Amino acid sequence: MIKVGIVGGTGYTGVELLRLLAQHPEVSLTAITSRAEAGGAVADMFPSLRGRVELRFSDPAAAPLGDCDLVFFATPNGVAMRQTAELLQAGVRVIDLAADFRIKDIPLWEKWYGMTHAAPELVAEAVYGLPEINRQQIRGARLVANPGCYPTAVQLGFLPLIEAGCVAPDQLIADAKSGVSGAGRKAETHILYAEAADNFKAYGVAGHRHLPEIRQGLSAITGAPVGLTFVPHLTPIIRGIHATLYARITRELDYQALFEKRFAAEPFVDVLPAGSHPETRSVRAANFCRIAVHRPQGGDVLVVLSVIDNLVKGAAGQAIQNMNLMFGLDECLGLSQVPVLP
Amino acid sequence: MIKVGIVGGTGYTGVELLRLLAQHPEVSLTAITSRAEAGGAVADMFPSLRGRVELRFSDPAAAPLGDCDLVFFATPNGVAMRQTAELLQAGVRVIDLAADFRIKDIPLWEKWYGMTHAAPELVAEAVYGLPEINRQQIRGARLVANPGCYPTAVQLGFLPLIEAGCVAPDQLIADAKSGVSGAGRKAETHILYAEAADNFKAYGVAGHRHLPEIRQGLSAITGAPVGLTFVPHLTPIIRGIHATLYARITRELDYQALFEKRFAAEPFVDVLPAGSHPETRSVRAANFCRIAVHRPQGGDVLVVLSVIDNLVKGAAGQAIQNMNLMFGLDECLGLSQVPVLP
Amino acid sequence: MIKVGIVGGTGYTGVELLRLLAQHPEVSLTAITSRAEAGGAVADMFPSLRGRVELRFSDPAAAPLGDCDLVFFATPNGVAMRQTAELLQAGVRVIDLAADFRIKDIPLWEKWYGMTHAAPELVAEAVYGLPEINRQQIRGARLVANPGCYPTAVQLGFLPLIEAGCVAPDQLIADAKSGVSGAGRKAETHILYAEAADNFKAYGVAGHRHLPEIRQGLSAITGAPVGLTFVPHLTPIIRGIHATLYARITRELDYQALFEKRFAAEPFVDVLPAGSHPETRSVRAANFCRIAVHRPQGGDVLVVLSVIDNLVKGAAGQAIQNMNLMFGLDECLGLSQVPVLP
Amino acid sequence: MIKVGIVGGTGYTGVELLRLLAQHPEVSLTAITSRAEAGGAVADMFPSLRGRVELRFSDPAAAPLGDCDLVFFATPNGVAMRQTAELLQAGVRVIDLAADFRIKDIPLWEKWYGMTHAAPELVAEAVYGLPEINRQQIRGARLVANPGCYPTAVQLGFLPLIEAGCVAPDQLIADAKSGVSGAGRKAETHILYAEAADNFKAYGVAGHRHLPEIRQGLSAITGAPVGLTFVPHLTPIIRGIHATLYARITRELDYQALFEKRFAAEPFVDVLPAGSHPETRSVRAANFCRIAVHRPQGGDVLVVLSVIDNLVKGAAGQAIQNMNLMFGLDECLGLSQVPVLP
Repeated sequence: MIKVGIVGGTGYTGVELLRLLAQHPEVSLTAITSRAEAGGAVADMFPSLRGRVELRFSDPAAAPLGDCDLVFFATPNGVAMRQTAELLQAGVRVIDLAADFRIKDIPLWEKWYGMTHAAPELVAEAVYGLPEINRQQIRGARLVANPGCYPTAVQLGFLPLIEAGCVAPDQLIADAKSGVSGAGRKAETHILYAEAADNFKAYGVAGHRHLPEIRQGLSAITGAPVGLTFVPHLTPIIRGIHATLYARITRELDYQALFEKRFAAEPFVDVLPAGSHPETRSVRAANFCRIAVHRPQGGDVLVVLSVIDNLVKGAAGQAIQNMNLMFGLDECLGLSQVPVLP
Repeated sequence: MIKVGIVGGTGYTGVELLRLLAQHPEVSLTAITSRAEAGGAVADMFPSLRGRVELRFSDPAAAPLGDCDLVFFATPNGVAMRQTAELLQAGVRVIDLAADFRIKDIPLWEKWYGMTHAAPELVAEAVYGLPEINRQQIRGARLVANPGCYPTAVQLGFLPLIEAGCVAPDQLIADAKSGVSGAGRKAETHILYAEAADNFKAYGVAGHRHLPEIRQGLSAITGAPVGLTFVPHLTPIIRGIHATLYARITRELDYQALFEKRFAAEPFVDVLPAGSHPETRSVRAANFCRIAVHRPQGGDVLVVLSVIDNLVKGAAGQAIQNMNLMFGLDECLGLSQVPVLP
Repeated sequence: MIKVGIVGGTGYTGVELLRLLAQHPEVSLTAITSRAEAGGAVADMFPSLRGRVELRFSDPAAAPLGDCDLVFFATPNGVAMRQTAELLQAGVRVIDLAADFRIKDIPLWEKWYGMTHAAPELVAEAVYGLPEINRQQIRGARLVANPGCYPTAVQLGFLPLIEAGCVAPDQLIADAKSGVSGAGRKAETHILYAEAADNFKAYGVAGHRHLPEIRQGLSAITGAPVGLTFVPHLTPIIRGIHATLYARITRELDYQALFEKRFAAEPFVDVLPAGSHPETRSVRAANFCRIAVHRPQGGDVLVVLSVIDNLVKGAAGQAIQNMNLMFGLDECLGLSQVPVLP
Repeated sequence: MIKVGIVGGTGYTGVELLRLLAQHPEVSLTAITSRAEAGGAVADMFPSLRGRVELRFSDPAAAPLGDCDLVFFATPNGVAMRQTAELLQAGVRVIDLAADFRIKDIPLWEKWYGMTHAAPELVAEAVYGLPEINRQQIRGARLVANPGCYPTAVQLGFLPLIEAGCVAPDQLIADAKSGVSGAGRKAETHILYAEAADNFKAYGVAGHRHLPEIRQGLSAITGAPVGLTFVPHLTPIIRGIHATLYARITRELDYQALFEKRFAAEPFVDVLPAGSHPETRSVRAANFCRIAVHRPQGGDVLVVLSVIDNLVKGAAGQAIQNMNLMFGLDECLGLSQVPVLP
């Protein structure tokens, strides 16, 4: 059994980790921290976990994280970078679900995240935890930077095209829509029910933190900077990301076959039949990315539709997938939930 | 492995049975019928099942239901009563998720359901599949009438009070609210998104088919007719029933203790701490009923709050719980999903 | 033109006042205060008002409220009671949309609202602004206590029955459901989209502040204390209250005729035909209360269904109705919006 | 007073016409037809109109449409083209809210709409009713083709850029999201609440009927065919369209100034300040298009955000705007509703 700790257990990625880990046969939940809720039972805060999670929240200072085999950080940006070095030295492996270790270019990270990085040397060591690209490196990693939700959906959708070099890498467009849980479980006015329900809007058009992360990932494949316009939107669903991707064709291929071949061996990426329109609910509460590729009107633009559950393949599920790889388990262990529809 | 067939697999109870049975370790899905979709792959209609359910829909006439150990009817009312006798004769056990075998009083059934009953003799044999009341009879049953969604939530909420005889049985009120999936997957105008979203209403105040079912269940406990006012409402959620129950106190007791004791051994009924307000999402996609009991202002009215997922404990999950009992399996087998929150 | 000021313009009742007053032909919006937003344009915060409301938020200390003919308080409880006396002395009339002047029994108010009342003498003077009961007194009032949203829906629904003395006044039950805007525009976790969407729950079963307000109103009619069980619920709609009211019959009457006659002259109360089920959307964004009365199964319980838009007839619309009365205008002026459906 | 008839009054554009026309000071509602509902009161079907619309549905064959000054067709595609000639001959003017007269190229229309056109000569006469482009022609028109909802939002957003010739006309992308009322009030499974709620998806990527309409409009401006990729999506809101438009810059300009100048005199197009993100609810239930223009990261792609209420500026409101123009009224008459927020 892997002894697992969670730092920051009161947000949505935290409770989603708990939901999934409670069903994982090789995990022993050992500690979960929350300064505000220390001493309280996790199941009092999240009654959905009654009878399934017996833990209480620990104060971060007192939590037995050093006894864990693995610690997940489900914290705001800037927390993991201060605590990871000590854990690694104690032999604990770490998966950060925030952004602290995602961007290799430290000044770029500091510009987008508005703070000084506390552990640049660990950024160099950290492995970007997108198994469909980095499976081998993840297996050996002490420290994994779990990808952002938008970056997961967008990179998986563009991946076959960029690898094949069949689209213009300087004219990519990602029009992405996220459910409201992506904004976290924070008391902020703009994500109140009466603000976000029956409403649709774009946000962050001038620049979103996931832009440099996506660019880094796609550029690593081409070996040259990519040009990407990324527009995120807020849609009134609880969970789910739908990325609509546009790329200009530069080389004729059987694009459907390209996608099917690229992901044939991937347990959590499902290429739909030609002509399909994946729905976010088709992956609700499950660790899948479903993708369809279209060439509207036979023109020179490809449209890729890519959906994930932002809390699962876009966060907690992918983190557990990475954990399975790091500990030599079946990559799918504990991740066999069937999507909840309707 | 239990060979299972499903008649009527294209509605919400059908696809929910598929979701849950696909995760059940002792079930082999053998046949699923749909006249309209015969020949089509189940996963083409419900992409959430891609990779998990390989079956195709069969024409009802051609489906190998006689080879099954158990057949679930997830059909409209009036279908199972015509096909069950033949299956039972072939040694196949049957669980009907519709209402054909729920009401013992045939003329009463015919009045509420507006048709002549085709198999009154089977109604006499059928066991009402509420395990918290009829566990023993279910174990030996050939034919189980799976309870309605409202009746499950309402009966479980009133049960301890009626059994203890501490409330007036002639003045019960059940104010119940259902998610829209309870109306089924039928192309009807009033349950369109643009009609049901951002809207709340009562319906069927003059009389709802679940009223006689609830009355029958509660009367069986007291041994005398109960007086119940039942008002169902439609609330814009996908899944979930919230029953708010009112009963006039006739005898002083520790009501919290009464509920806790009554359900202490029940794996799927969870009595919340005093003062709690169960949310429908705390049971979303899982086979639980969560209950809280209140005595507002120390007055003479008890208020019981009872929540279920109408598609799980109110339909498919309870049906599988019944299946487990009928086949001597652990009652909880395949039903350990953690509720999906948020 | 009536010069109108609004204290506390950034909440939902504030913006709703602005929406309605901007369409009122006899109102000149003179001042709107917000400490946090002082100096900012109202339409920058609420783009829906662009081109229709040119005002900027004023600091409360500097706002020219003394120059107004009428000031609306759309503030949290406890604000109006500190500022009203000075305004009244300056000849300004006041309508408080919060609870400061609703409860005549000061100790009772202080118990439920958890603070010492700052102006008990004004409570005595204040007129409870439910025009269907107090129209004449409102006409002459300097100070109106605008009713709560639940109390409006519940009192209007019970009113004919209580006045007629045909139900048991000690066994009333009000099962009420509110949209999430009723909780206000406050940054609180439990009303986040991802918490409140696709979820239904009761709250405040032990006691809600609107309980004494409703009791006071109904008791004033009977001349004796009424016994009321009041259970509020949160339903995932933006606007709307649906009250389902239960009363035990003590005297036979034609209840449909009773309701129709009682409200025949009321411009904003609409009694639906027998057998109807009013929907909250049938009053969305408009100043109506729609009511239906049922006697299920011919039994001894009456069920009254009463719906309002909590922000209109339950708050801002009713306040403007009161304003019209206070200033001798046509009661319906500026309140002719047709409900928005779908 | 203009005597107005409505053919097909039971859909969403029909009831929205009724909502708005009931508030229009120069309109006398004379007839509304529905074969299925003939004889029934409009307000029985739509209780939101109780007390405001006294009409009953007429059988189409018997309706006194010839006595009207203007008839709106709120019917499925293919109805207006069969009935318009007779009305025009009787001196009745016509506004068709469906697509029968929108596309000038008859074979193109027949290909996309799958039927033979019954009145090609009227297509030549019909004026495309987008006042921001065709105001003068609308004033003199007997027959107006009211634009589609997507085409309204997309064309208004691209208009200044295309007119100025500052973007590449062959690489336009319109990623558009529509609320579910855009699919109409039809009993179809895919728009049920339990299917469309908490779900997001693209549809019609291979080709949507609004594509040729948008292309026709934009091409008329440039005088040459435009290249447009158009991807519609369904988002779980009742009303609203959000178009996210992408265009490649070919000439440097002050784009904010360009938009502000182009729409300065337009009463129903509102250009937001630089950096804004218009929300669909900021136009809910009102006849506005709000637009923002962005140049992310100073790159070579412009992003235009354009929102409308699909039932108002995208249908019934725009139709009334056209009526006002056709009958020499103030263009804004009866269209001064303030958007409903929250």
